[in-house]
Amino acid sequence: MTPGDLPAAIAELRGALGPTVVLAPGDPAAGFVRDERGLLPARPAAVLRPRSTAEVAVAIGICARHRVPVVPFAGGTGLVGGAIPLGDEAQLVLSVQKLDRIRSVDPVDFALTAEAGCVLTDVQRAAEEVGLLFPLRLASEGSARLGGAIATNAGGSNVLRYGMTRDLVLGLEAVLPDGRIWHGLRSLRKDNTGYDLKQLLIGSEGTLGVVTAATVRLVPRPRHHAVALLALPEPAVLTPLFALAREWFEDRLTALELFGRTGLDLLLSQLPDQLPALKDPFAHPHPWYLLVEATATRDGAGLAAQLESFLAEATRLGLVADAVPALDRPQARALWALREALPEAEKRAGGAIKHDVSVPLGAITAFLEDAEGELAVAFPGVRVNAFGHVGDGNIHLNVLARPERATGVSELVYRVVAEHHGSISAEHGIGVLKRDALAVAREPLELELLHTVKAALDPLGIMNPGKLLRG
Amino acid sequence: MTPGDLPAAIAELRGALGPTVVLAPGDPAAGFVRDERGLLPARPAAVLRPRSTAEVAVAIGICARHRVPVVPFAGGTGLVGGAIPLGDEAQLVLSVQKLDRIRSVDPVDFALTAEAGCVLTDVQRAAEEVGLLFPLRLASEGSARLGGAIATNAGGSNVLRYGMTRDLVLGLEAVLPDGRIWHGLRSLRKDNTGYDLKQLLIGSEGTLGVVTAATVRLVPRPRHHAVALLALPEPAVLTPLFALAREWFEDRLTALELFGRTGLDLLLSQLPDQLPALKDPFAHPHPWYLLVEATATRDGAGLAAQLESFLAEATRLGLVADAVPALDRPQARALWALREALPEAEKRAGGAIKHDVSVPLGAITAFLEDAEGELAVAFPGVRVNAFGHVGDGNIHLNVLARPERATGVSELVYRVVAEHHGSISAEHGIGVLKRDALAVAREPLELELLHTVKAALDPLGIMNPGKLLRG
Repeated sequence: MTPGDLPAAIAELRGALGPTVVLAPGDPAAGFVRDERGLLPARPAAVLRPRSTAEVAVAIGICARHRVPVVPFAGGTGLVGGAIPLGDEAQLVLSVQKLDRIRSVDPVDFALTAEAGCVLTDVQRAAEEVGLLFPLRLASEGSARLGGAIATNAGGSNVLRYGMTRDLVLGLEAVLPDGRIWHGLRSLRKDNTGYDLKQLLIGSEGTLGVVTAATVRLVPRPRHHAVALLALPEPAVLTPLFALAREWFEDRLTALELFGRTGLDLLLSQLPDQLPALKDPFAHPHPWYLLVEATATRDGAGLAAQLESFLAEATRLGLVADAVPALDRPQARALWALREALPEAEKRAGGAIKHDVSVPLGAITAFLEDAEGELAVAFPGVRVNAFGHVGDGNIHLNVLARPERATGVSELVYRVVAEHHGSISAEHGIGVLKRDALAVAREPLELELLHTVKAALDPLGIMNPGKLLRG
Repeated sequence: MTPGDLPAAIAELRGALGPTVVLAPGDPAAGFVRDERGLLPARPAAVLRPRSTAEVAVAIGICARHRVPVVPFAGGTGLVGGAIPLGDEAQLVLSVQKLDRIRSVDPVDFALTAEAGCVLTDVQRAAEEVGLLFPLRLASEGSARLGGAIATNAGGSNVLRYGMTRDLVLGLEAVLPDGRIWHGLRSLRKDNTGYDLKQLLIGSEGTLGVVTAATVRLVPRPRHHAVALLALPEPAVLTPLFALAREWFEDRLTALELFGRTGLDLLLSQLPDQLPALKDPFAHPHPWYLLVEATATRDGAGLAAQLESFLAEATRLGLVADAVPALDRPQARALWALREALPEAEKRAGGAIKHDVSVPLGAITAFLEDAEGELAVAFPGVRVNAFGHVGDGNIHLNVLARPERATGVSELVYRVVAEHHGSISAEHGIGVLKRDALAVAREPLELELLHTVKAALDPLGIMNPGKLLRG
């Protein structure tokens, strides 16, 4: 990309949008632009806070005319540096946080339209107010925002039943890299009128435009939850357990979350202040644990019976060593707390080299064994905290090791992922932290196609350059 | 597009692939290339029948070098002329029918990999053999083929529960417009590594490449079916009925199919040879009927109880005038037969001007009333046979009128669709028959984006030119 005229762009932006919209880097109000994981410096040339889609369009139009790079920013909870500007005051940050209106909630249409800056919990609440559920459920949902979830195709804990963010988006409004507004807000369930343009923006990490609003799918709100924690005798039972759970609960199966003894030990040692909430629910230690959740709208009795017969059948087949069903919501929340506190425990233990990977469902056990086995040989003594949404084949394979080992550890993990036909980014995206790994993991033809799409839709290369693809 | 050298291309194709792969237009073996609806002439310059992905790649490579247009063809059951060559011996047809292997069925992974020429019922059967379900269900499934279903993002009768074809595809193998093979067969549930390239090919109607194989999602096979036909007092009950059905059955709700008295009268008058199978199940005529189906894997008793309590609640609320629950599979099939025989009855009555449209769920009643009302004023005496997958907002609004009225009738229908923020093609695609309507229905910016994507991925414009977009 030809370097643009940054000072001229900032002057014109300030003139068009005013000083409260265009913040200088030192402005305390711009301090929210920082890397969630603290791994990357954030030195924007300026931080833009447009208050409407029209202002986003004006801002991007000015950036395009001056050919200056712009980095879309929503909640700032991404884990791969996708919303952090590169270089030293070389890129502008455009925050969508001021676009925070829920535009409409339509229970008849099972749809909600919200702006990109809406915090996910606010979207969830708006759906609840009409008796429905917006099913995107992330650990960071209290600060993650809708635009970021769409730009990264966020996953989370409800994917098994409701799909990724991609599956929840019915329509989009976005500002394209030339500053024009695409009015693609629709609530249709079926629309076969040409290439599905919204699919390009979903998961594009801000490299093809700025999502300003979305119409998302709502679903009936479950009133009944069946939750149990299963202790597994060995990882090989995972595959038959999945099949059994799907057969028993069908689409009511909402979550299958795995964690290991390493994770539970981390919780018990690192978060003693949160005991007794975080206590081992079993009398004896086990190598692996699986949290199962199924939900239903009305049929609470049927759901409870399904859980009971599932546990009985799994026990009869020798697939579980022990099981703790939650008898009420507080017990269910206590079991979930074990899973949800894992990242915090990891952080307290000094952090980890993180890998958000996925493999085919049938390869999970072999992948876990191979990755742990090879890491033990190559990096003797490191501990592996593997957990995640295994019902989707998604493992957060986090290695408790010194950061300077990151390159070698990650290369090994990604090699084992490739051997099992997996993905190096299941749900966090590529951003800048996985950009070079992507170039190794995907075929040259695929990389070429990614570049072709980028060049076609952002010919000036101003949208979040250097993210996802090398600029 | 610059006209290419067709004779040279055909000579080279014949040399490279042999005479059994490259058929002259008059060859009886090429007779399968014809328009399903008999509306369009089919005069290919030659018909190619490659036997492998490698041969497809060779064929497309030769077409690209000579810049000759090629029309991908699968089952030939499309309703918008998408697989029919344009012009008089100006375009080649490439059939994928010889690519008909099921490459793998993996019950552990809940995935199946099949070639583009596999007939849908064969894919369904392969899934059933491992106790699972491939949920794509089309009226034409006995002759429609996987590649065509993917190229058109086919819908059908199971979309409510399992989604469109787009939602069933995990990975693709395709030959790109330059003849290179994209190896994108994956069975991952989560993969956030850049733009989701397969989304571009799904629903692209052969304009961006040729799908040669796909890995598709399988689901647990339902063993229990709850089916009922509801007689509705008025169309306004549809919206509250949908909400109630979703609340009661949740994701078990598999189909909500609407048809009207016009449709039932057509069945009774046009298909007397199929009586008594096709008889009015009610004692009195009603204006509208809704077929409800829910399915379950194991919980047959629970499902039957759900149907019973749903019907009781719907009756109590005054949402249904009468209801006939199916007590066994033959009764269920008899109710489905009413819905499924509608296109045949229409054909026997002399055909119809067909509109495969969708509107937001909350707009269905108003759309039906407005469309029927305006048609009655503008075209007095025409009958409207409206039916379809209303649970997805999808209506087949077919008008029993002379073909010469098609332009005026369709313009009216599409205008009413636009007033209700709907789509002029819910599930059949655009092909050539809706190409000009698309240009009116979508915003100029959207059309420009469609052309941008097309130009980026098929810069020579050889893939199915004139379909979807004006060439």
